[in-house]
Amino acid sequence: MKRKPSPGNWLYGLTLALMLPMLAHAAEPLASWNDGPAKTAITEFVQTVTKDGSKDFLAVEERIAVFDNDGTLWSEQPMYFQVLFALEEVKRMAPQHPEWKEQQPFKAVLENDHQALEAAGMEGLLKIVGATHTGITTEEFMNNARAWLAKARHPKTDKPFTEMVFQPMLELLDYLRANGFKTYIVSGGEVVFMRAFAEEVYGIPPEQVIGTTFVTEFQPGGGNPTILRTPKLAHNDDGPGKPVSIDSIIGRRPALAFGNSDGDLQMLQWTAAGKGKRFMGLVHHTDAKREWAYDRDSKIGRLDKALDEATARGWTVVDMAKEWNRIYPFEAKN
Amino acid sequence: MKRKPSPGNWLYGLTLALMLPMLAHAAEPLASWNDGPAKTAITEFVQTVTKDGSKDFLAVEERIAVFDNDGTLWSEQPMYFQVLFALEEVKRMAPQHPEWKEQQPFKAVLENDHQALEAAGMEGLLKIVGATHTGITTEEFMNNARAWLAKARHPKTDKPFTEMVFQPMLELLDYLRANGFKTYIVSGGEVVFMRAFAEEVYGIPPEQVIGTTFVTEFQPGGGNPTILRTPKLAHNDDGPGKPVSIDSIIGRRPALAFGNSDGDLQMLQWTAAGKGKRFMGLVHHTDAKREWAYDRDSKIGRLDKALDEATARGWTVVDMAKEWNRIYPFEAKN
Repeated sequence: MKRKPSPGNWLYGLTLALMLPMLAHAAEPLASWNDGPAKTAITEFVQTVTKDGSKDFLAVEERIAVFDNDGTLWSEQPMYFQVLFALEEVKRMAPQHPEWKEQQPFKAVLENDHQALEAAGMEGLLKIVGATHTGITTEEFMNNARAWLAKARHPKTDKPFTEMVFQPMLELLDYLRANGFKTYIVSGGEVVFMRAFAEEVYGIPPEQVIGTTFVTEFQPGGGNPTILRTPKLAHNDDGPGKPVSIDSIIGRRPALAFGNSDGDLQMLQWTAAGKGKRFMGLVHHTDAKREWAYDRDSKIGRLDKALDEATARGWTVVDMAKEWNRIYPFEAKN
Repeated sequence: MKRKPSPGNWLYGLTLALMLPMLAHAAEPLASWNDGPAKTAITEFVQTVTKDGSKDFLAVEERIAVFDNDGTLWSEQPMYFQVLFALEEVKRMAPQHPEWKEQQPFKAVLENDHQALEAAGMEGLLKIVGATHTGITTEEFMNNARAWLAKARHPKTDKPFTEMVFQPMLELLDYLRANGFKTYIVSGGEVVFMRAFAEEVYGIPPEQVIGTTFVTEFQPGGGNPTILRTPKLAHNDDGPGKPVSIDSIIGRRPALAFGNSDGDLQMLQWTAAGKGKRFMGLVHHTDAKREWAYDRDSKIGRLDKALDEATARGWTVVDMAKEWNRIYPFEAKN
């Protein structure tokens, strides 16, 4: 009895026939990426660090990949989606807060008074975030975020926000996981807001979502304990806050980091300074037609210093217009 | 050609012969646990929540198990091992700090003056922890912890501290992981100190170690960035701090929680209040001969309120003397 199939063996033919579709799939893991410098850099990096015996081989437990969220995994224009959520929450909650009719910045939100809202500045925004994101339990806030995500639509595309994720980045997350990477979000977004959709949309479980946090308190509640969200900021997960949370929560240096703005610079620097081969990437928003085009002068997602440093150090800058043949999952391939 | 082996088939015999050792191993996953109420409660819980179609079935992603460290996974007498580390670090660092010869509480440590050390109290201890645990980078502190763990010996057993882990708990961690659970440490110990050995000793990777943290700062360092540990406490992961960090970092309620002291009570309450079947366990130190016996009146690892609540609510209390036939890996089976 022959144990090892030879080319003449019918089993060999059957095996090949069964395997070919898998091979075809494996050959095109980044279908929405055009053949270009970014796709080449990504695949070369992954092949190098996963090749047994390579001097740059990374053990599976070292394969940590971190991604910013706003502008990196989903769009962030005309405003961070979480801010749109906060503004709409003010309107939803207004009946329980009659005093808001005469109180800024809430009055401005309720009257759609953009000028007054802008005048309220960062301080006003923090009041709005405080009022809509805190003073309730984690569970209640998660439910509010999910209820909004289920019904809200983007002002430009009229699509649910969770469909405004980047198809090429979804494929990149899949490709990395298929190669043994653990994929993390490390973002300035509030952590529970992101957990409300990250598992379903990105395949990233709550424990791999790192973000901005508020101080919370354990409330014994006589047998029905809850976690109360206070308005005090615990951690601002932006800029230098990103390597700090990576070090504190993951406890390992990432092998790959992807961002899109100056707020990601320190995370990329921290990744780059690790020993051995590392991958640093930036999404460059260059596509005014299919998405948005902005960089050095944008208020949202400004990309200036990080673009200079990426260029100087040879990090991968993804030219969205040139390198992505598809932006959103709901679009046809270009 | 027969595709499915029948009992008469030689392949069947071969398969059985190859599988029997695995079956034998699988039948005894908690070898250091005597047949008793704790082992029964553990195995019944795991079988119930992993049985497809059971009303208490837990999807793999929901199988989160959290463990306290000091007194639950390793011993904590005559003093928390991390405190012994801090005291020995004072001696190691003394040549660089000549002023300590005249400065309390350092003078007391250098002179082995237990009375003066006790008089310095918690405030003195915090000074010692601050001086030995902060003002350096995460990497430096990790190296210091590893260097100490490699050479330090326990005052009673003369064994390395990393060998004073509980064999039955190592088996429990393995058993849970074999059943799809993700195992976490959630402990009052400082997080980097625990990461220095948790992966090698417990099989728990750094990103699944949650503990007390200091505020850290990103230092750009001109291309060689570091994370500096400041003396400011960021999070005290004890008592109510445990459900808070579980909610903030894991973002899911545990299915199983194990502790040994009143500092674990809120973590157990938080776990118990989840929907569906949950497991709450306490290690009760009842073995003065093989380990230590202490509970309600102990300064270290006091177990008083949590023991009452566990008894009242039917949580599993592990009577170490009766239920464990082996304490440490270096001991023979009793």
